[in-house]
Amino acid sequence: MSQYSGQQRILLAVDCIIFGFDGKNIKLLLVKRKLKPEEDKWSLVGGFLKTGETLDDAAHRILHHLTGLEGLYMEQLQAFSEVKRDPIERTVSVAYFALIDISKYELKISDRASAQWFLLSKKPRLIFDHDEMTLCARKQLRYKASLHPILFELLPEKFTIPQLQCLYEGVYDTIFDKRNFTRKLMSTELFIKMNGKDKSSSKKGAYYYKLDKRKYRIKQESFLNLVPKAEKFL
Amino acid sequence: MSQYSGQQRILLAVDCIIFGFDGKNIKLLLVKRKLKPEEDKWSLVGGFLKTGETLDDAAHRILHHLTGLEGLYMEQLQAFSEVKRDPIERTVSVAYFALIDISKYELKISDRASAQWFLLSKKPRLIFDHDEMTLCARKQLRYKASLHPILFELLPEKFTIPQLQCLYEGVYDTIFDKRNFTRKLMSTELFIKMNGKDKSSSKKGAYYYKLDKRKYRIKQESFLNLVPKAEKFL
Repeated sequence: MSQYSGQQRILLAVDCIIFGFDGKNIKLLLVKRKLKPEEDKWSLVGGFLKTGETLDDAAHRILHHLTGLEGLYMEQLQAFSEVKRDPIERTVSVAYFALIDISKYELKISDRASAQWFLLSKKPRLIFDHDEMTLCARKQLRYKASLHPILFELLPEKFTIPQLQCLYEGVYDTIFDKRNFTRKLMSTELFIKMNGKDKSSSKKGAYYYKLDKRKYRIKQESFLNLVPKAEKFL
Repeated sequence: MSQYSGQQRILLAVDCIIFGFDGKNIKLLLVKRKLKPEEDKWSLVGGFLKTGETLDDAAHRILHHLTGLEGLYMEQLQAFSEVKRDPIERTVSVAYFALIDISKYELKISDRASAQWFLLSKKPRLIFDHDEMTLCARKQLRYKASLHPILFELLPEKFTIPQLQCLYEGVYDTIFDKRNFTRKLMSTELFIKMNGKDKSSSKKGAYYYKLDKRKYRIKQESFLNLVPKAEKFL
């Protein structure tokens, strides 16, 4: 008999809050739950932890199964452990959040019938404590994005400054002063100006930029303070 | 039969990284493990999650049992899930970190025979992945403390500025420029100067200060940027 034999063993799940950006709006990837109870209700993407895998492995497996993607930006958020959070049986869930550039992967996701992108501002009510998880992930996304350049994970290879501002405004659900915001972004020296212009949004057009990947890796940990008074959004 | 019957159930533990400050040094509270294997080796304070409690409940129960304390500053850090992290049986552990003013609680802790404070810089090797947890907690402590006034949880009711600097230097394992650091701290407007002086460390003495609790609560979430170039310590 093991020293641990008196202890309770319980189910452990992983749930992923997957944020995407389509060039205009911040979205959240949801699936329809296939089990009772709450069958056919909208849910975060998730699954149980399996023998022989870590929580990180499980999160990547679940995301890969749904999207065909590997190597996405993903971060462990928090364990959720309210005793009755799952009405079937006690399950502790470790939430992860992931960031995706939607345009890159749209096709693969739409192959899996039940997954769908929702505007973050117009998402349906979710099962269990998934709304709480989503709020918590949004708070963490705002926190991290105000300090570190993580939102660039959501952008296509080449992007315009208006697109970038649109992304930040979507995440913080606010409007930033265009001149100040552009100056702050440019002062990070993370961008390389390209030759082409995007003329789809204005006659004058907006230059395309790309990320300086070397600087980006170095500055991941720096405190760039990209968002003024970020705490008011938390 | 439940919809979840095919899934594996596993042990869930909570481990607490308890940082303390004794007015001079940063310390870590450790206990001697009472089970085989690794019996009598130093370990973080921990225990299994019980039926009917959340992870937060478990962390508070474990800390209260050891120290007699309630209402301490505590924060969920991360779940650790390497498959073989516990050689007896697969156990996922959720790590918490706590901050304690040692002078306030020394007596209560020393009642529990096996617990002991170690200088963070001179701690023994710990069992399982507890060294990794401690490193992770120290990193998170540095991260949070560079932005938010959380270290004040470690200070006694009245304290001097040299003590405060000593605390920050202990956490970051470095020396800060005295004048710049004091100016930065004072600019937070979190301190109220008191009448008395501490004359134990110098002839001239150092004024005692106390925390402005109302401002402290408001500024918990603000980005104060207390530590210059904090990223180099992460």
